[in-house]
Amino acid sequence: MEYNEVMKFALQKGFYFPSCDIYSDKSAGFWEYGPLGVNFKNNFIDLWRSELIRRDEVLEIDGSQIMSKSVFTASGHLTNFADPIIKCKECSSTFRVDKLLMEKINININENEPLQKYDEIITKNNICCTKCNGKFFNSSRFNMMFSIGIGPENEVAYLRPETCQSIFVDFPRLFKTMRGKLPFGIAQIGKSFRNEIAPRQSILRLREFYQAEIEIFCNPNNFNSFTKFSQVANTTIRLYVDNKTKTMSCKEAVDSKIIPNIFIAYYIGLLTEFYAKTGIDMSKTRFRKLSDDEKAFYSTSSFDFEVKTAVGWLELVACNYRTNYDLIHHANVSKENYYVLDGEDKIMPHVFEISMGIDRSLYSILEHSLKNDSGNKRTLLALQPYLSPIYVGVLSLLKKDGLEEKTNEIYTQIKKKFTVFLDHAGTIGRRYRRLDEIGAPFAITIDYQTLKDQTVTMRMRDNMNQIRIQISEIEKFLTTNILIPHNAIKSKYPR
Amino acid sequence: MEYNEVMKFALQKGFYFPSCDIYSDKSAGFWEYGPLGVNFKNNFIDLWRSELIRRDEVLEIDGSQIMSKSVFTASGHLTNFADPIIKCKECSSTFRVDKLLMEKINININENEPLQKYDEIITKNNICCTKCNGKFFNSSRFNMMFSIGIGPENEVAYLRPETCQSIFVDFPRLFKTMRGKLPFGIAQIGKSFRNEIAPRQSILRLREFYQAEIEIFCNPNNFNSFTKFSQVANTTIRLYVDNKTKTMSCKEAVDSKIIPNIFIAYYIGLLTEFYAKTGIDMSKTRFRKLSDDEKAFYSTSSFDFEVKTAVGWLELVACNYRTNYDLIHHANVSKENYYVLDGEDKIMPHVFEISMGIDRSLYSILEHSLKNDSGNKRTLLALQPYLSPIYVGVLSLLKKDGLEEKTNEIYTQIKKKFTVFLDHAGTIGRRYRRLDEIGAPFAITIDYQTLKDQTVTMRMRDNMNQIRIQISEIEKFLTTNILIPHNAIKSKYPR
Repeated sequence: MEYNEVMKFALQKGFYFPSCDIYSDKSAGFWEYGPLGVNFKNNFIDLWRSELIRRDEVLEIDGSQIMSKSVFTASGHLTNFADPIIKCKECSSTFRVDKLLMEKINININENEPLQKYDEIITKNNICCTKCNGKFFNSSRFNMMFSIGIGPENEVAYLRPETCQSIFVDFPRLFKTMRGKLPFGIAQIGKSFRNEIAPRQSILRLREFYQAEIEIFCNPNNFNSFTKFSQVANTTIRLYVDNKTKTMSCKEAVDSKIIPNIFIAYYIGLLTEFYAKTGIDMSKTRFRKLSDDEKAFYSTSSFDFEVKTAVGWLELVACNYRTNYDLIHHANVSKENYYVLDGEDKIMPHVFEISMGIDRSLYSILEHSLKNDSGNKRTLLALQPYLSPIYVGVLSLLKKDGLEEKTNEIYTQIKKKFTVFLDHAGTIGRRYRRLDEIGAPFAITIDYQTLKDQTVTMRMRDNMNQIRIQISEIEKFLTTNILIPHNAIKSKYPR
Repeated sequence: MEYNEVMKFALQKGFYFPSCDIYSDKSAGFWEYGPLGVNFKNNFIDLWRSELIRRDEVLEIDGSQIMSKSVFTASGHLTNFADPIIKCKECSSTFRVDKLLMEKINININENEPLQKYDEIITKNNICCTKCNGKFFNSSRFNMMFSIGIGPENEVAYLRPETCQSIFVDFPRLFKTMRGKLPFGIAQIGKSFRNEIAPRQSILRLREFYQAEIEIFCNPNNFNSFTKFSQVANTTIRLYVDNKTKTMSCKEAVDSKIIPNIFIAYYIGLLTEFYAKTGIDMSKTRFRKLSDDEKAFYSTSSFDFEVKTAVGWLELVACNYRTNYDLIHHANVSKENYYVLDGEDKIMPHVFEISMGIDRSLYSILEHSLKNDSGNKRTLLALQPYLSPIYVGVLSLLKKDGLEEKTNEIYTQIKKKFTVFLDHAGTIGRRYRRLDEIGAPFAITIDYQTLKDQTVTMRMRDNMNQIRIQISEIEKFLTTNILIPHNAIKSKYPR
């Protein structure tokens, strides 16, 4: 499905839409989830909790979004988290220099080059403002953190640009309180904030966005005794290395040294199993191994999980082996003790990070699940049942002869446990199509036979089959069929 | 339980703790939820969704926290949302004037008085700085919204001070997209932000806090045809009117005109049933009817749901009949059409609001559930099973003879569906007490008999009874016993 079609669909159905849309001073990069979007997002988060948090004994925290200046002195964001920008002398329009150069003269230049270099290229190529053709001031750096003034004293603090910093700051307390042992995982899901220069593409580049980050604290001397690896040793993964996609098992990836150790390979296997369960077409995904000049400077090994969408390859997850870079810096600035005991070793733990973008993941699932089923004259949102914003529709065949009352009775009973959509209006075919469009995997129809023998029609979204089941069996049927499957979804991995 | 004991307990177990605690520039009013707190909070939110959202067909949205300036021009926050403050000429300490006057000369003065009035009282009573005894500057107003600069142009926007404004802004779109009919409920749960002058008392007064707000859009001409009222007509509620607590049914409250109509009475009944299910001691609660000078100026009827705690009566929920004040103002500033059809009537809907503080609710539940069970030499956190951060502990009687392996096997099986705590360490009695303290309603112990007949001991937290059940029955036992009960919890309402 094309990006514009997904976009139109999301707006029409209220999956997501621009924030403050009725006001002319609304800013780009802020979006809201509507009723279907909220349910869909919550189900995605439940899947994340089930497959990556509970399965793996990771602890979850929920920290404040406004954090002290010292946190970002230690993390390096105050000095390093800045984009190169350039401003027009005439119309004051501001641009990201690296993107401007890409657009104007097709030069791919790193965002971390010295400012002087950009100015030289601008002058040499006589590049002017794309809006008014004016000349530019010299380029400068724009820090992407939002600053906040606290209290009447206006003390400076910041909206967090990533959720992981609370995890690093809270690590000593949590390791102690929770009687921690390495490897020790802490996760956080929540909003992060980045003051992007010119965000576009709806929920793909937001100034306020949802992240789910997992930080695994570990002892780098003990990678080889990491027994959980056997769970995913045979899981098939897709790696993109040296401009080639290679499909192999986790074990083969370690044996061939594409992935440096079984610890990292374990999490790549786990993530693969997770995304297969989201319904993303796994043949359009890859773990891209970053080259040395692409990696963050503290990372010794990085893999980006990317998905092919209508707007190109999209990074959904960054997996970074961050070493003990973050802990050393927080320990230095705070003077807190970050050393822990692991057997005989007293160490400053290393950190492996799984940093997931929720909004982009949701977009990718939508794009891969939305289909024009023209044979059946319908739009089909073929979401996995456990991700569907509505689990079941409840419909009366006709709105008379006691069918409406019976329908409402069944609806009232099952809405206690499930997200249900009650619909009395229009032809039954039209109501089924309406449910297909919003991804409801099941529909229950109450008809004259229901009044006689207490059975209903249960219609399946994907194959449009219908069966009759007892009213007393509805709850069990739904519970069983919207469960997250325990085992990995193997069939989705092409090899 | 005393406030300080609850506080100590929460810190020790990692329910919640101060944000950025390792840094000296941390600000007051920012707290984090640790692993147990996150589970507890998520369970509370699930209960809210089950009892107030799904039961009542309310739609939920998740909007951006940073919102445009126009939103707060329309809502009145830019001009009205300000506290009176006063600053010391010597040491620059800043105080809320109304609180200072209460503390120093025990005068209860409204926060909305003209500034001149405060200055007169300060001068007349010769009130000086509590820190350095210095003289004060004249008082001024301090707006409690956090402002934010967007993009390189630094456009002014604000962190939302309440979650309901997105609901009002998005109403026309949602009513259309979701084929709305009055009454039409929209809810939002999420962070709100208020730049309090001097926040204290941990999660009871935060600068960044969780709100859950439900806005019901309705036709004020149709209150009397509101049929759902019969669901709660006989629900017993506690009202605080004219300095007296009165216990009566919802119907009696309407008949005696204490509650103005069945529409408002319905939601007060619903909220009563909700809080009874949280395990709060309902004999220590009341809906306080606000007098005319306490109400917000746009509200024609307001009830605060208050709970008696160790720090006094605490407001957990504000119920406000907001009329069409908000919609009129957003319609005027945005020029958007806010009129909708309801039968023959073309109206600007009225709004009834249920504005809940999550953090305070969690504190109150903790305080009411935490007990010194000295007879059994234990601390008992008697949470309702469905709110417990850990549903079940899994313990090996001894760590040998295959018991450890069997225990791990059972643990691995049930952690797929439940939050479980695995514990092999220490005497069994001590491990039970550890589970009692964190509120786990059940504990499973694997012993020698398990190896023979595939049964385990299931221990109940509250009465400490133990029964033996089949391993194959564990999942069913837990599922049944952590369900939210469908019916109202009547026994908790004293009359």
